[in-house]
Amino acid sequence: MRIVITGAAGFVGEELANVLASNPNALNGPISSLVLADLHRGETQGNHVTWCCGDLTDQQYLDTLFAEPVDCLFHLTSVPGSLAEREPERGWSVNLIAPINLAKRLARQGRETGRVPKVMFASTIAVYGALGPETFHENHETNPTISYGAHKLMIEMLLADLTRRGEIDAISLRLPGIVARPPSETGHGSAFMSQIFHKARAAEPYACPVSPDATAWWMSRKTCVANLIHAARMDLSTLGPSRQLQLPALHASIGDILTALGQQLGRSSIQQIWHAPDPLTETLFGRFPPIKTPLATAAGFVGEGSSDDLVRNVFDQ
Amino acid sequence: MRIVITGAAGFVGEELANVLASNPNALNGPISSLVLADLHRGETQGNHVTWCCGDLTDQQYLDTLFAEPVDCLFHLTSVPGSLAEREPERGWSVNLIAPINLAKRLARQGRETGRVPKVMFASTIAVYGALGPETFHENHETNPTISYGAHKLMIEMLLADLTRRGEIDAISLRLPGIVARPPSETGHGSAFMSQIFHKARAAEPYACPVSPDATAWWMSRKTCVANLIHAARMDLSTLGPSRQLQLPALHASIGDILTALGQQLGRSSIQQIWHAPDPLTETLFGRFPPIKTPLATAAGFVGEGSSDDLVRNVFDQ
Repeated sequence: MRIVITGAAGFVGEELANVLASNPNALNGPISSLVLADLHRGETQGNHVTWCCGDLTDQQYLDTLFAEPVDCLFHLTSVPGSLAEREPERGWSVNLIAPINLAKRLARQGRETGRVPKVMFASTIAVYGALGPETFHENHETNPTISYGAHKLMIEMLLADLTRRGEIDAISLRLPGIVARPPSETGHGSAFMSQIFHKARAAEPYACPVSPDATAWWMSRKTCVANLIHAARMDLSTLGPSRQLQLPALHASIGDILTALGQQLGRSSIQQIWHAPDPLTETLFGRFPPIKTPLATAAGFVGEGSSDDLVRNVFDQ
Repeated sequence: MRIVITGAAGFVGEELANVLASNPNALNGPISSLVLADLHRGETQGNHVTWCCGDLTDQQYLDTLFAEPVDCLFHLTSVPGSLAEREPERGWSVNLIAPINLAKRLARQGRETGRVPKVMFASTIAVYGALGPETFHENHETNPTISYGAHKLMIEMLLADLTRRGEIDAISLRLPGIVARPPSETGHGSAFMSQIFHKARAAEPYACPVSPDATAWWMSRKTCVANLIHAARMDLSTLGPSRQLQLPALHASIGDILTALGQQLGRSSIQQIWHAPDPLTETLFGRFPPIKTPLATAAGFVGEGSSDDLVRNVFDQ
């Protein structure tokens, strides 16, 4: 099987690339070629690994990626929400045009060769827009309030329609905050969710921009990658016509996570972390309600069961 | 004001173009330039009228359309649903890529010049997907089951997001079956809705592919154009953040319409129309439930009140 990962040098992509490079039987068939796509090379190496660097809005670059048929594409490339709001043309290119171009190539392959590519699309909880305090259920309506969420939702629809036509076999996985992203990855309004891990590990001072009671939806990179691989292995037709799926995120407060960090790293690790709540950040990223995802769980997708599990998975890699 | 109509040689576009060409004060300010865009010239002429023919996926053509700022764009161009299902690459180009290209130009104009263009987008009831028998309310969820509906819904989202950003001022009007389209306009699975008008007027034989009890949502071209102009005149901000609107369609059965045709054209007009129901056509286009659109009506949008009104408006132009 020929596998392509876009955003393979990014935070989630790198881990996915490493897992697949070191285990060529991780998917349903042996991986004969693992094509890692990104603007610049990352670290991943391996027998079947080829880095293929370029811009997904460049048709010649897509010619290279699709020079041979793609059996399985993980599309992870994106410009995060806050950055896309500040730089709308960049968000437009990367979050909207690039996946449309990819989808067109994939659909054409499926239509013309009958070799229907499987597509795992990293979508986002930003498709929902503002959530109220009541418990969230996975069939919640969508109403994005930032361009990042609107573009991701548009691509979900496009992939679902091409799946209905039988030209591709796609699933859109709605990712919560994946931690702990490196501080160098800018553009996430929710960066504080990762920063508390880094600051605790380094026992450094940090002004956390939300209160201890702020609640968010969390997932470790390790669990995120396990879910992406699970999607690639499973028979997606068992999910029915709806090909959008909310991953089972952990609902936990910043205070919960800090407590778990203190328990695992020692109390001194978090002694220099204090709270300087920013009202906008608190509103946008600190009011996530409890979440129920029984369908995703029944389909074999996983989430961390507790803050302790989350902290363990973040540091265990 | 500089006005652009895409699809200006089409069924709805032609009528809109004629109304605006003959009444340069139909909108909020005087029309200094009415640019009529389509693949080929239509019939409309007038003092301020310029035909500008080309393909909306051609960037050079868009350069011409946007050579001067656009104050108001009516985007009517589309490949209808059944045709788009049969020719997916054509539907993709016209229903998805072309409006994305247009939206990009419009947003850039709004962002860079502060002259925020108003956009009236002809969307469709195909965004809803299959409807049950219970009365439809205008805030109904969307779940398109054909590419035409999926693409239109994607564009609705894009325009709503750019409106939220303040770069354009858009509304997506969800059009029901507009009658009576000329028989030459192919590609509508609902073509029978128009054919019964033509066949009755000519008193010709016609095998109607749905039963007399089949119910559909109807609107005359005259009323459709009145709604497009109303949208262009009104303060869209009064609609709130949601910029998708279901027009007040008439819910009527084929039997009702035939009765009204017989009353207005004489009984002999419909004597050669019989019913040869095709199960798929009946299911897709003959099971529309009663429809309630109090918000649209309160905002000044109109629909025909009866089958008699519909028939009268269809022939009165």
